[in-house]
Amino acid sequence: MLSAWQQKCYDNLLNVRRKAPLVHNITNFVVMNSSANILLSIGAQPVMAHALSEVEDMVKLSSALVINIGTLDETWVSAMIKAGLAANSLGIPIVFDPVGAGATKFRTDKSLEILDLLRISVLRGNASEISAIAGFDGAMGVDSIHNVDNFIDISRDISNKYSCVVGISGERDLISDSRRVARVANGHSIMTRVTGTGCGLSATTGAFIAANEDPFEAVVSAFSYYSLAGELAYKIAQHPGSFESAFIDALEYINIDDFINANIQVEE
Amino acid sequence: MLSAWQQKCYDNLLNVRRKAPLVHNITNFVVMNSSANILLSIGAQPVMAHALSEVEDMVKLSSALVINIGTLDETWVSAMIKAGLAANSLGIPIVFDPVGAGATKFRTDKSLEILDLLRISVLRGNASEISAIAGFDGAMGVDSIHNVDNFIDISRDISNKYSCVVGISGERDLISDSRRVARVANGHSIMTRVTGTGCGLSATTGAFIAANEDPFEAVVSAFSYYSLAGELAYKIAQHPGSFESAFIDALEYINIDDFINANIQVEE
Amino acid sequence: MLSAWQQKCYDNLLNVRRKAPLVHNITNFVVMNSSANILLSIGAQPVMAHALSEVEDMVKLSSALVINIGTLDETWVSAMIKAGLAANSLGIPIVFDPVGAGATKFRTDKSLEILDLLRISVLRGNASEISAIAGFDGAMGVDSIHNVDNFIDISRDISNKYSCVVGISGERDLISDSRRVARVANGHSIMTRVTGTGCGLSATTGAFIAANEDPFEAVVSAFSYYSLAGELAYKIAQHPGSFESAFIDALEYINIDDFINANIQVEE
Repeated sequence: MLSAWQQKCYDNLLNVRRKAPLVHNITNFVVMNSSANILLSIGAQPVMAHALSEVEDMVKLSSALVINIGTLDETWVSAMIKAGLAANSLGIPIVFDPVGAGATKFRTDKSLEILDLLRISVLRGNASEISAIAGFDGAMGVDSIHNVDNFIDISRDISNKYSCVVGISGERDLISDSRRVARVANGHSIMTRVTGTGCGLSATTGAFIAANEDPFEAVVSAFSYYSLAGELAYKIAQHPGSFESAFIDALEYINIDDFINANIQVEE
Repeated sequence: MLSAWQQKCYDNLLNVRRKAPLVHNITNFVVMNSSANILLSIGAQPVMAHALSEVEDMVKLSSALVINIGTLDETWVSAMIKAGLAANSLGIPIVFDPVGAGATKFRTDKSLEILDLLRISVLRGNASEISAIAGFDGAMGVDSIHNVDNFIDISRDISNKYSCVVGISGERDLISDSRRVARVANGHSIMTRVTGTGCGLSATTGAFIAANEDPFEAVVSAFSYYSLAGELAYKIAQHPGSFESAFIDALEYINIDDFINANIQVEE
Repeated sequence: MLSAWQQKCYDNLLNVRRKAPLVHNITNFVVMNSSANILLSIGAQPVMAHALSEVEDMVKLSSALVINIGTLDETWVSAMIKAGLAANSLGIPIVFDPVGAGATKFRTDKSLEILDLLRISVLRGNASEISAIAGFDGAMGVDSIHNVDNFIDISRDISNKYSCVVGISGERDLISDSRRVARVANGHSIMTRVTGTGCGLSATTGAFIAANEDPFEAVVSAFSYYSLAGELAYKIAQHPGSFESAFIDALEYINIDDFINANIQVEE
């Protein structure tokens, strides 16, 4: 018997599988392949397109836009902003993943520029990236992890400032909007040994906000589903190479019975 | 006991394995890794190079050029055309994969520009892309599938117009040149849940036309071999992550006995 | 009971695992994902960044810079040089992988330009690439393999000219600096059927020189460890798709007992 939130997560996953939303990704070179495979396993349709000549047309066909600055340069950021403005004018939700914000001034500046110019539905990052966006000097590596409990106020402030859901992934995940806070405590540390798992979560979040009504619930569901799949995969494969395949598999075969293990706490 | 066409497919595969042709790919960021691995598993040698400063030199070393616009922009299309003109002047065959033609005007326009400026040996796409090139308004997602029987006339017209073999992949595949039509009915639907399987087929087709005399037979053989490997892989792995590894494996270990299952119908 | 060199290799691996160095890669599109995964499996932290606006800031955070010209163009080479000059001024070691040098004039010229402008700690390539850098006309495919014994004088000359360690990978590997020569005879030929294994070795070498004192010993250790993991993986998986996963796994779980099989000969 699933709890209300467990059931909600599963229902939101079903909506993704039923609607098979087209998710437009302007993302980094490292994860293009894995993010596309993750979206396909979820039941969504990925498309990658970054040319200034077509991003507006491509976003029109899509149900969500995912922007990820992992290997940004000036031209790609221009494409992200052009696509994002088109998405905003069409009411298509945007997920923004500020990969490496705080690591270099360029990444922090461009992240803030994107947040200033675009209305973002979901900001998803690790604690280090989110704190850089909040203006704290947290320059550190790309994959650092903190205790998310220290980030409740920060993420609520960012939610208010940018009118977006903030999703911080880490050993435990923290999701907040202006009035609610959720903690998701699933997943496995091996996920940090495979590149692109964070970026894949951003892509997954794109699929979930595309297929579901409430962005906060969609993000909680995406995070919970994604980390549950990680736990299932770890039962199959305990080393990072085979884990990656097993994880893609689990995203596809995970089903209602598995959601009994979803560890979600929500404060409203 | 193999049929004549089954034997032909296998013989054409053997030619790839024996000749190990160097295949120059100017392709998209999503599939560069998987297409390279697919070519290596087949027994071909992949090279990826897109700089305007070297594409002519690189194509000279190659036995086929594969052009794929999956993540095109203006600069990359210029490189494709420069490489293609060099290939044409040297008699090196070109496979063109118009990924997403019909989805945006930019992709349709650039596809037609490439077809106008270059002599293409093989045009490979899904039904949606091929119908966009034929001038039909079929704007849809990147991975849509149709009943290929509706495309016999269209693909023959395109074959005549551009003097190329047309290969449409889908649940069943259709290959045609100006006088022959082949249907290949192998493969498995899970192949649509792994990104880059279509692009990998274009790369495979490049290796087959490089190593074999008759382009039509080479394309039929490439499609048949590729989808047979998909069937073999599905026996090993029924979910998309592990399927991808199993598929790369099967491309390498598939052998003569497996071709008894090749379902090829040719009308001459 | 391990020999002195076997123990040294293992100790150098332990240093990588303990220090988890951040390795900045400016590398090619084909291998960005696999190189990142390889670095994570080793226990290092990968970062990929190529924008002229940030490469200097990113290299400051890093313990090694890996430059790989596999899909070079003019802009990316500018970023490599800018990052490399910053690395030189900070004393951060650089590994340079001249992918495809000798195949096109552009690659040979750019390789020599990089070697002229930057102080490289390690030059890692196959025999064909190294001979192109030595000025021999060895234009050939990207993955050609020679008998490395023919390259002892060449690599020593290059070591002297550029004050770097030269690592030539092949069926047997040859590592030399101005006074020492090592031969590593491990690995398996299936590694040539997976794209990016050479590039992944360059990334691995970056992690090893970052975490260890003596560059020559670090390179010998990286090569030995990497090819031992290939042997372990081949026991698990004999085809290229599943081999790649098994190889990433083995890089992570390989341990002290496995180094008894390390076949290292050093002449001082």
